[in-house]
Amino acid sequence: MENAKVIAYTLRERFGEDVTMPSGINNLSQLEGIASHCVCRKYSDRSIDFALIRLLCACALSAPSKSDLQQRDILIVSRASLRKRIADLMPDMPWVAEAPAFLVFCANGRRLPQIAKLRDKPFPNDHLDLFFNAVGDAAIALATFLCAAEEIGLGCCPISEIRNHASLISLWLGLPERVIPFSAVCLGWPAKEGKITPRLPLSLTVHENQYSEVGFEQRIGEYDHRRESQCPYLKQREPDRWGNATHYGWSEDKARQYAEPLRTNFGTFVRKSGFSLE
Amino acid sequence: MENAKVIAYTLRERFGEDVTMPSGINNLSQLEGIASHCVCRKYSDRSIDFALIRLLCACALSAPSKSDLQQRDILIVSRASLRKRIADLMPDMPWVAEAPAFLVFCANGRRLPQIAKLRDKPFPNDHLDLFFNAVGDAAIALATFLCAAEEIGLGCCPISEIRNHASLISLWLGLPERVIPFSAVCLGWPAKEGKITPRLPLSLTVHENQYSEVGFEQRIGEYDHRRESQCPYLKQREPDRWGNATHYGWSEDKARQYAEPLRTNFGTFVRKSGFSLE
Repeated sequence: MENAKVIAYTLRERFGEDVTMPSGINNLSQLEGIASHCVCRKYSDRSIDFALIRLLCACALSAPSKSDLQQRDILIVSRASLRKRIADLMPDMPWVAEAPAFLVFCANGRRLPQIAKLRDKPFPNDHLDLFFNAVGDAAIALATFLCAAEEIGLGCCPISEIRNHASLISLWLGLPERVIPFSAVCLGWPAKEGKITPRLPLSLTVHENQYSEVGFEQRIGEYDHRRESQCPYLKQREPDRWGNATHYGWSEDKARQYAEPLRTNFGTFVRKSGFSLE
Repeated sequence: MENAKVIAYTLRERFGEDVTMPSGINNLSQLEGIASHCVCRKYSDRSIDFALIRLLCACALSAPSKSDLQQRDILIVSRASLRKRIADLMPDMPWVAEAPAFLVFCANGRRLPQIAKLRDKPFPNDHLDLFFNAVGDAAIALATFLCAAEEIGLGCCPISEIRNHASLISLWLGLPERVIPFSAVCLGWPAKEGKITPRLPLSLTVHENQYSEVGFEQRIGEYDHRRESQCPYLKQREPDRWGNATHYGWSEDKARQYAEPLRTNFGTFVRKSGFSLE
């Protein structure tokens, strides 16, 4: 198949609808890597050169950052004992221990006030914006890292679960005030081909001029159905509490997941780490 | 030059240090686009096919999202009168009016509680985590969009400035409760070749096992010097208040920028839009 056809096929699989391929673009094939993103949790034994990890970090940190403030850092966890301690916090995610490489992306709201002090300037900006910008920068660096890694054939799995253990992990990584973990990434050469996860239809998530929820319930229902047939959930969450649903799609899974209070102490952690959220 | 050499050269320009190219990776050239990212604010007259914009949105929304919650949306601003109203808010940024295409990336903390209601489940998660996850998802989609667009040769300029006008823009785009603008993007075919913006050295931003600030002041000084020689600022901020510095680098520019209270009402906006930051 030509690349444009592969991309069209992949995106139909992803969104359940045809995404028109534009004409007159001769290098559409460049999009194949990004369009066919799959999470990867099983890695081959092939190790990853440290130089490659650093190169990918350099790519990630070449991404834009809000006002060029560069409020993000990357920690490469290379010490086996440190990785083990982190992995032990997440026994349901064996790939955290198994992945050939493991990195932590951090939001850094510390450097800017440090710079202000260094240049003998006031810093009347200790409010939500500092936190927001740093989180945005960290997420942008993470996503760019994933794009770069997947471009050369590596497989990745972002681990936002580290935020469930934010205090401990911050302590172990020596994160100072106003530097917080955003997400980790497991990295390795894939052991097998990935599977496209279906996503919400573009008709619900891409809007023109006005945000619209027309047909919300119907589209969610269709999406649930599509997930169930293309990519069924292996088990239902908490059948003791919610029973066994005859049809178990995305909305049922996510509604069950968030029917529990989750990460309710994250705000306390963020404030304790020195950020104001006012 | 071979691609690996181009990448090495670009990253030396970017970080002021040699980034070792790993051996045994035969498709390193795939990283060239990401490594050579440049902001683009001047666009040629060539228009952008609407199908291409939608295709790039599909690529962006193929990126990972926290727990597959997909808490982000994209608004394509295609109506000229709406674009003009937005551009008029930012007269210092003429590219907002001029770019062939303009999109707004939004954090969506609304869909998840909607799903809970639809599936008749409680939602005891109205706290910082909901906001944090949605902002992260929006930033990941934005960064992936930029990677995709630049892969095929388009030029982009993210516009976080829309957060300075978050209430108005939300009103005009019809954003409901708990959907907030994260960043806009100007998009077009570049009118000229971009220029690499130097970044902080990797020795300050990529850590191994432990966060480190060793040599902080010296490295910032070197970076300031590098910026001044490679990519000097065209003017100094607020010379009436701060005088004319003999050497004007990144730290002086950023310290002056944030010596003013900026976007102090963003927290109020976010809370008013229905997010709890507890």
